[in-house]
Amino acid sequence: MQQNAGVSGYILLLTVQFVFIVIFGIYTDYDTDLQPKNGTVQAEENFVIPKYPHFQDIHVMIFIGFGFLMTFLKRYGYSATGLNLFVAALCIQWAILMRGFFEMEHRTIRLSLANIIGADIAAASVLISMGALLGRITPIQLLIMGLIEIVLFASNEFLQIELMKIVDVGGSITVHAFGAYFGLAVSFILRPTKENAKPGELESASYTSDIFAMVGSIFLWIFWPSFNSALVDGPEQERAILHTYLSLAACTVTAIIISALVSKDNKLDMVHVQNSTLAGGVAVGSVVNLMIHPVGALIIGSFAGLISVLGYRYLTPKMFEKGRIADTCGVHNLHGMPAVASALFSAIFAYFATKDAYGDSLYTIFPGMKNSTIDDNEMIIGGFGRSSEKQAAFQLLAILITVCIAIVGGLFTGFVLKSPTFKNLRTHELHKDDIYWETPDHQEYNRDEHLQ
Amino acid sequence: MQQNAGVSGYILLLTVQFVFIVIFGIYTDYDTDLQPKNGTVQAEENFVIPKYPHFQDIHVMIFIGFGFLMTFLKRYGYSATGLNLFVAALCIQWAILMRGFFEMEHRTIRLSLANIIGADIAAASVLISMGALLGRITPIQLLIMGLIEIVLFASNEFLQIELMKIVDVGGSITVHAFGAYFGLAVSFILRPTKENAKPGELESASYTSDIFAMVGSIFLWIFWPSFNSALVDGPEQERAILHTYLSLAACTVTAIIISALVSKDNKLDMVHVQNSTLAGGVAVGSVVNLMIHPVGALIIGSFAGLISVLGYRYLTPKMFEKGRIADTCGVHNLHGMPAVASALFSAIFAYFATKDAYGDSLYTIFPGMKNSTIDDNEMIIGGFGRSSEKQAAFQLLAILITVCIAIVGGLFTGFVLKSPTFKNLRTHELHKDDIYWETPDHQEYNRDEHLQ
Amino acid sequence: MQQNAGVSGYILLLTVQFVFIVIFGIYTDYDTDLQPKNGTVQAEENFVIPKYPHFQDIHVMIFIGFGFLMTFLKRYGYSATGLNLFVAALCIQWAILMRGFFEMEHRTIRLSLANIIGADIAAASVLISMGALLGRITPIQLLIMGLIEIVLFASNEFLQIELMKIVDVGGSITVHAFGAYFGLAVSFILRPTKENAKPGELESASYTSDIFAMVGSIFLWIFWPSFNSALVDGPEQERAILHTYLSLAACTVTAIIISALVSKDNKLDMVHVQNSTLAGGVAVGSVVNLMIHPVGALIIGSFAGLISVLGYRYLTPKMFEKGRIADTCGVHNLHGMPAVASALFSAIFAYFATKDAYGDSLYTIFPGMKNSTIDDNEMIIGGFGRSSEKQAAFQLLAILITVCIAIVGGLFTGFVLKSPTFKNLRTHELHKDDIYWETPDHQEYNRDEHLQ
Repeated sequence: MQQNAGVSGYILLLTVQFVFIVIFGIYTDYDTDLQPKNGTVQAEENFVIPKYPHFQDIHVMIFIGFGFLMTFLKRYGYSATGLNLFVAALCIQWAILMRGFFEMEHRTIRLSLANIIGADIAAASVLISMGALLGRITPIQLLIMGLIEIVLFASNEFLQIELMKIVDVGGSITVHAFGAYFGLAVSFILRPTKENAKPGELESASYTSDIFAMVGSIFLWIFWPSFNSALVDGPEQERAILHTYLSLAACTVTAIIISALVSKDNKLDMVHVQNSTLAGGVAVGSVVNLMIHPVGALIIGSFAGLISVLGYRYLTPKMFEKGRIADTCGVHNLHGMPAVASALFSAIFAYFATKDAYGDSLYTIFPGMKNSTIDDNEMIIGGFGRSSEKQAAFQLLAILITVCIAIVGGLFTGFVLKSPTFKNLRTHELHKDDIYWETPDHQEYNRDEHLQ
Repeated sequence: MQQNAGVSGYILLLTVQFVFIVIFGIYTDYDTDLQPKNGTVQAEENFVIPKYPHFQDIHVMIFIGFGFLMTFLKRYGYSATGLNLFVAALCIQWAILMRGFFEMEHRTIRLSLANIIGADIAAASVLISMGALLGRITPIQLLIMGLIEIVLFASNEFLQIELMKIVDVGGSITVHAFGAYFGLAVSFILRPTKENAKPGELESASYTSDIFAMVGSIFLWIFWPSFNSALVDGPEQERAILHTYLSLAACTVTAIIISALVSKDNKLDMVHVQNSTLAGGVAVGSVVNLMIHPVGALIIGSFAGLISVLGYRYLTPKMFEKGRIADTCGVHNLHGMPAVASALFSAIFAYFATKDAYGDSLYTIFPGMKNSTIDDNEMIIGGFGRSSEKQAAFQLLAILITVCIAIVGGLFTGFVLKSPTFKNLRTHELHKDDIYWETPDHQEYNRDEHLQ
Repeated sequence: MQQNAGVSGYILLLTVQFVFIVIFGIYTDYDTDLQPKNGTVQAEENFVIPKYPHFQDIHVMIFIGFGFLMTFLKRYGYSATGLNLFVAALCIQWAILMRGFFEMEHRTIRLSLANIIGADIAAASVLISMGALLGRITPIQLLIMGLIEIVLFASNEFLQIELMKIVDVGGSITVHAFGAYFGLAVSFILRPTKENAKPGELESASYTSDIFAMVGSIFLWIFWPSFNSALVDGPEQERAILHTYLSLAACTVTAIIISALVSKDNKLDMVHVQNSTLAGGVAVGSVVNLMIHPVGALIIGSFAGLISVLGYRYLTPKMFEKGRIADTCGVHNLHGMPAVASALFSAIFAYFATKDAYGDSLYTIFPGMKNSTIDDNEMIIGGFGRSSEKQAAFQLLAILITVCIAIVGGLFTGFVLKSPTFKNLRTHELHKDDIYWETPDHQEYNRDEHLQ
């Protein structure tokens, strides 16, 4: 048993934490806003950190939202909530560093609220990948995966946002598509042998675990407008809030109705209600600050709800059957496809973006369309002064590159995790807390297993 | 089974969603604040949307609060959380339109954060009605009810607030009283036959479902100050927060003590703890921005806790016994009676409102008491320049009209739902998820049923 | 049974609530900010109450966080959530008064948002003590304890912050250390006889109750940055947020790894994941606004995670074995030791605090180091113009005095609760909801008890 539990893995992770501390000591300091002010003592009584409520909403999504959404498995609730916390706590530290390396000034990463918002969002991509693999990898494998994924995430995010200047305020491309396809690629490498390719005995919900999952699902639903609007200000922010709200509402109605129409005996399916109702938040992500108008948000949301439910109903079983690609939480239906759709929408709306419709905000929303004379010292792939058609092409390029990096990175990570260095779970160990957790009385546990 | 599941009902609702999209396309656009700004580029870094944290708190109340409060039934947790999400997602879209029609400019409803706050609050009234009927109507009936109710809600809200200029910042009259009596009137029409008028076999809690319900209850408790203060600003807002906090605290202490004193063996009753502790938020709603002073908030809260527990203990059983009016969640005790009390309090405090106590804010709080010369082009029922006595009379008129509209509207809606067009649930189908949901292994489910 | 249930106790508490109302009526009024404004009518549209989101986060911690963290016992979930609500609702009222008495002006306590933030924080200390005693005292004993504790809490808080001018922005000294040692002292007095000193039959978790506890734990984790930054503004506030975030992240990683390393078969222990992951929030509390730098936060967090897990694993069983001091939730490991560590850290950082590092904020952060000529009319124990060494000494004195007051106060309170006036629970009544709650079908309940 000692061998299985991976003492050496835990010691490795402890070393990682120690190394993080050293790197933080060498390379990080406070941002100017957090430094003590000298001279004039300002009245700070009405001081407000503008994005703090947004941050806390996102924080709830990452730790309660993702954590509890994954509790739907009947015997994996400790892992869902506990490993979600573990992997996110490790990844946010690593994300602060990796993302910071790209913005270093004088070899120092200057920290403020913006960095921890960015870190939380980065962690989301890992948690999405975790969803694809839920119950199929060990805690150590999961954390190693997270460490590798954050490196690629931060690089791709920098490439897309800073160098290619694409529009992706809600992170559909950089977070959702990236996380989903990365996780699926890992899942492909770790796929079961043909003999073992059947749904796990414990790969289903109990009545109670399904309701726990609703805690996570609904909190994600509630705070998604904050996720999609955290990186913009002013009218853009309020548009992002409105669009996400409307998209989720239409998505929910459509998804639940479609669920009834395509399910056995026309009964509602909790998997759809927990997951597909959220697809509207993903699908609107890349266009959330654009002039898509309320009706655009509703159409996008409805479409997302539709494809997500159809994906759960028809595509996921097929992917497992034909390609033995397991996707425990169905992240392809909640994050993958809706994110690709969002990228397509962003290309369409960029294509039709005009100075008339956007006024001066055209250049803050699409910085690549700015006149190049202003920002000479900034490097942009594709250059400044883009036409709207060219911006549209870059949006398509963005999703293409992102999915490629995610898949190649995921395949590589899968090979690493499959190596004999790491323990791999055997079939009877899947989706089971008690391999890695002390659970209440083992005997009762087994008996209980047959009850719900 | 196919027939029962109501395919045609779901297709009808899908059509409704489609029609909503069309109407949004024709009649809605962004509010000025959400339009791109031209000319001067403002520094928007410290931009804050003032009511956004309030909105998110209310959003939690609507989707987590109401949803989980209704999970207390042992086998209705999927419906409680899932149908709550479904009906609210549909109703918020409809409420944006219906409420918007009353404020249209140039045939356009201009959307901003204010509209979605208003939509969430409108949805609350439907969810309150849902509480009265929980487990007794089909999903299709529930959604049809919501669609009808929103029309009446929006009309009555416009009548009370805009035309009659009554004071009801926390929505006790327009939301709580309306939702409760509407639901009870529907319940009256759908009442069981005399032979079937006995408490349902599944109409009780399990140990686990009761704790799930506490998730909802406590989140409602926590964020109620935001619900009651979202529509006011400045000192009024901070008073509303303080009053709601104090009222709920006193209500909770009183309700729990009274629960022990009136219950069997002096044990505490979870129904009271989950529901009556919230009555203080309702009872203070109509006076929440008035000068009721901290002590006034405590008295109102204690009184609400007292009548709510007594209502659960003595009135609800009697209503079912004598009138066969079922009220699954006891909304009459949590929303109905406390809201009527709140209206009475508002009449009393309006009666004694003076320029001395309120200063210039007298006229912003009670717009009907303003001098008419200022706002000539606004129509107010009862006219401007009201005396405080007249304002008090209007507060009483408001609750009277609201309850009448709610009851008549509820009776009408009940008749619609009872028509043979809709499937009505039979006795053995009440309070049971598995009529409309795929539930984990049916056999185990039935066995499990007898366990908790 | 009637006798046991303590009707007289409930009537006493009802009287207390009545007395609170009277005292509020005599001694409280609105703060100036909440009074109606006269004369110039300000544009209040963009009005924001700066600390309101912070308040709501703390509010979630107190009522959901503490309440659900304590649901981990398999048959004490009604009490955990319900009594948490009950005792907090009573204590916040009492805390407003007790804390207010120290700041009265013209015999009036002027209420605003600041007072209810302070009241929520005060209630936390009682809920921490409750954690030590969970399942071992009656509701009446618990509430009486809360009433006594609030008096001592408010006095000690005033002594430390206002008179001794110590630094303790996150309340590690005044809240966490105080609450933990107070509770442990009560527990010592109420300790079982030697014959009965064995772990209770029901003193453990079920699979479901452990996941409920994660709801509380994770919400505490998420909102802890708000708890630690609510009482400061400007750069101090943003530093406090960043430090708490980093400390919790490092603490979580360290605690979970150490949990695996020291537990049987190297499996993870839910107790550690639920509790020790939070110790980083406590340990950073007293230094949260100081210039500890990001790396300092990570080191403090890791250290806290380490000692907390070791405490749960080795110290708590020993305390029960040797001293018969029960500590149901292990508050000594989550609140006690990390808080003492935090005080030591605060002494170290105060010792090295210089004008160079802090600029002018040195005197707002450490008011005792200000030049005395400025604030002549304020009394400070130790006087103004302290050196940094002297401030360090005062930090040490603060934790010493606080722990002394907590222990002496707790011993006294324990004697009061042990007196024959109050019913004391017998061994077979421990950790059991159904002594004080109506629970679903008693027979099934007992059968169910043996299942999970």
